[in-house]
Amino acid sequence: MEIALVGIGKIAQDQHVPAIGASPDWTLAATVSRHGQVEGVEAFTDFDTMLAARPDVRVVSLCLPPVPRFAYAASAIRTGRHVMLEKPPGATLAECHALEQLARVHRVSLFATWHSREADSVAAAKAWLADKTLRRLAVNWKEDVRRWHPGQEWIWEPGGLGVFDPGINALSIVTEILPGPIHLSSAELAYPENRQTPIAATLDFFHPQGATVTAEFDWRQEGDQIWTIEAATDEGTLRIVDGGARIEIEGEPRKIAPDLPLSGEYPRLYAKMARLISEGKIDMDLAPLRHVADAFMLGRRRRVAPFHFRGKQEVKP
Amino acid sequence: MEIALVGIGKIAQDQHVPAIGASPDWTLAATVSRHGQVEGVEAFTDFDTMLAARPDVRVVSLCLPPVPRFAYAASAIRTGRHVMLEKPPGATLAECHALEQLARVHRVSLFATWHSREADSVAAAKAWLADKTLRRLAVNWKEDVRRWHPGQEWIWEPGGLGVFDPGINALSIVTEILPGPIHLSSAELAYPENRQTPIAATLDFFHPQGATVTAEFDWRQEGDQIWTIEAATDEGTLRIVDGGARIEIEGEPRKIAPDLPLSGEYPRLYAKMARLISEGKIDMDLAPLRHVADAFMLGRRRRVAPFHFRGKQEVKP
Repeated sequence: MEIALVGIGKIAQDQHVPAIGASPDWTLAATVSRHGQVEGVEAFTDFDTMLAARPDVRVVSLCLPPVPRFAYAASAIRTGRHVMLEKPPGATLAECHALEQLARVHRVSLFATWHSREADSVAAAKAWLADKTLRRLAVNWKEDVRRWHPGQEWIWEPGGLGVFDPGINALSIVTEILPGPIHLSSAELAYPENRQTPIAATLDFFHPQGATVTAEFDWRQEGDQIWTIEAATDEGTLRIVDGGARIEIEGEPRKIAPDLPLSGEYPRLYAKMARLISEGKIDMDLAPLRHVADAFMLGRRRRVAPFHFRGKQEVKP
Repeated sequence: MEIALVGIGKIAQDQHVPAIGASPDWTLAATVSRHGQVEGVEAFTDFDTMLAARPDVRVVSLCLPPVPRFAYAASAIRTGRHVMLEKPPGATLAECHALEQLARVHRVSLFATWHSREADSVAAAKAWLADKTLRRLAVNWKEDVRRWHPGQEWIWEPGGLGVFDPGINALSIVTEILPGPIHLSSAELAYPENRQTPIAATLDFFHPQGATVTAEFDWRQEGDQIWTIEAATDEGTLRIVDGGARIEIEGEPRKIAPDLPLSGEYPRLYAKMARLISEGKIDMDLAPLRHVADAFMLGRRRRVAPFHFRGKQEVKP
């Protein structure tokens, strides 16, 4: 199938282009971007021009930031294209619901992707937890914002989500691996006094069987970077480490690679998109974004030291 | 049908008890409250005790504040009771979704009520707008918090929603009368520097046909209190005034009472609940709460003067 990629920035170049290139399902037929291009692929700077010029392109993948994304997705759906959305699927929950309604009317597939759910160990973690009784689940998602978002001022603007931009990845894993629904019972959000979005957050969730479920997100982490989820059960403790890349059970690494048909988060996302289209389905799970919106609505705000992008600005390795 | 009322505070005494008393569908069989009681009705102070002692009571109406409400609703549903929720239906969106899932599993009716949608003129406004082209819709919801919430500190605590507590009533009307979905495009929230919830908010919405849709909520309004929604269309202007009690078209009051089978918001809510149960249905429209959560997530925060409950504290008339 021919696909167009919209928003040729870092995530598109690093992940989407190679995943499409390596897939037997997809051919990258066009790009739309003000500046970015992909060698050998027809490049457009205007989205509506591409939609009109390439009626053969039936699928559009949107990797631009969430705030302008709705208008692109709505245009694509109205012209009968299937649409794939980078995370988070929108700047508001209401626009995501509106897109889903629109996709049903136009009978196209719509996929709100959560790339961390496709990390190597997530399916194995979910299977291991399925028949255990959860006692405690603790998320620790602590990274250095200067290292991963050097100079990116937009993350501090309204809608940029602040530390929830990485934190929503953890929430996408938690909502995937837990068998029942959880909801926020309280939260504390730390706002730098010169910024609109939080730099750290502590979340406490209600769990239907009474387990203690917590999350700590922090963007001020220097040195070792931490992306772990620890789940203590009646039959031992599971640790998801490196953002879902690996798991340990009772401290022992567990091999999970042999079961996986594809290697990598994005190749699995694109394989899933091909499947959704062939089955005529929509996958618009908003649970991670809903928890983030709940945290902004229910969270206690606390002012912390101002934040500036100064000093050493490492490049993402 | 026998019904139990939980949380015997001001809204229960003013609205729920008279509505149940006047209805041919309902008998108030029990109350649950730490302090409140209704004369001639069996009073419990513990909810689980009531559920066990009164298996004949098949329906529970919850009027307690949103934060503790989830646990009550979940217990009621698990014991097979139909449940009616005051607005807002929960402190988080995720818990509302969880309740809906639970209600489906236990095959009971669940009703997230929005009393302002039952105001006298709302159905007429919706019918009038249905075949018009909207150009502009402006909500003005401006009241004096000292007058309507004298000394209520909880409205300033996380989860208390601040000015969105009345504002969500306006949003419940707007989402009822507009034919298509809207979503927030930007918002500004004014927080008193000593408080956790906003005292004022300005909201801008995206409208699918390009109308300008805005809302102004303010809790600092002295003198005349304003609860209006003005909708300019290609065929004239509709004004909803007094929170939905009356409408004017091109400045002329329009009579709407003769069409209405019941008088008052709460009698209509209880009639609807009886209908939902007889049809085995769930009505859990979360659109108003979703817009509020979106506003907290996407809104720009602005600090304003501290707020104190001092000076004259009028009583709600």
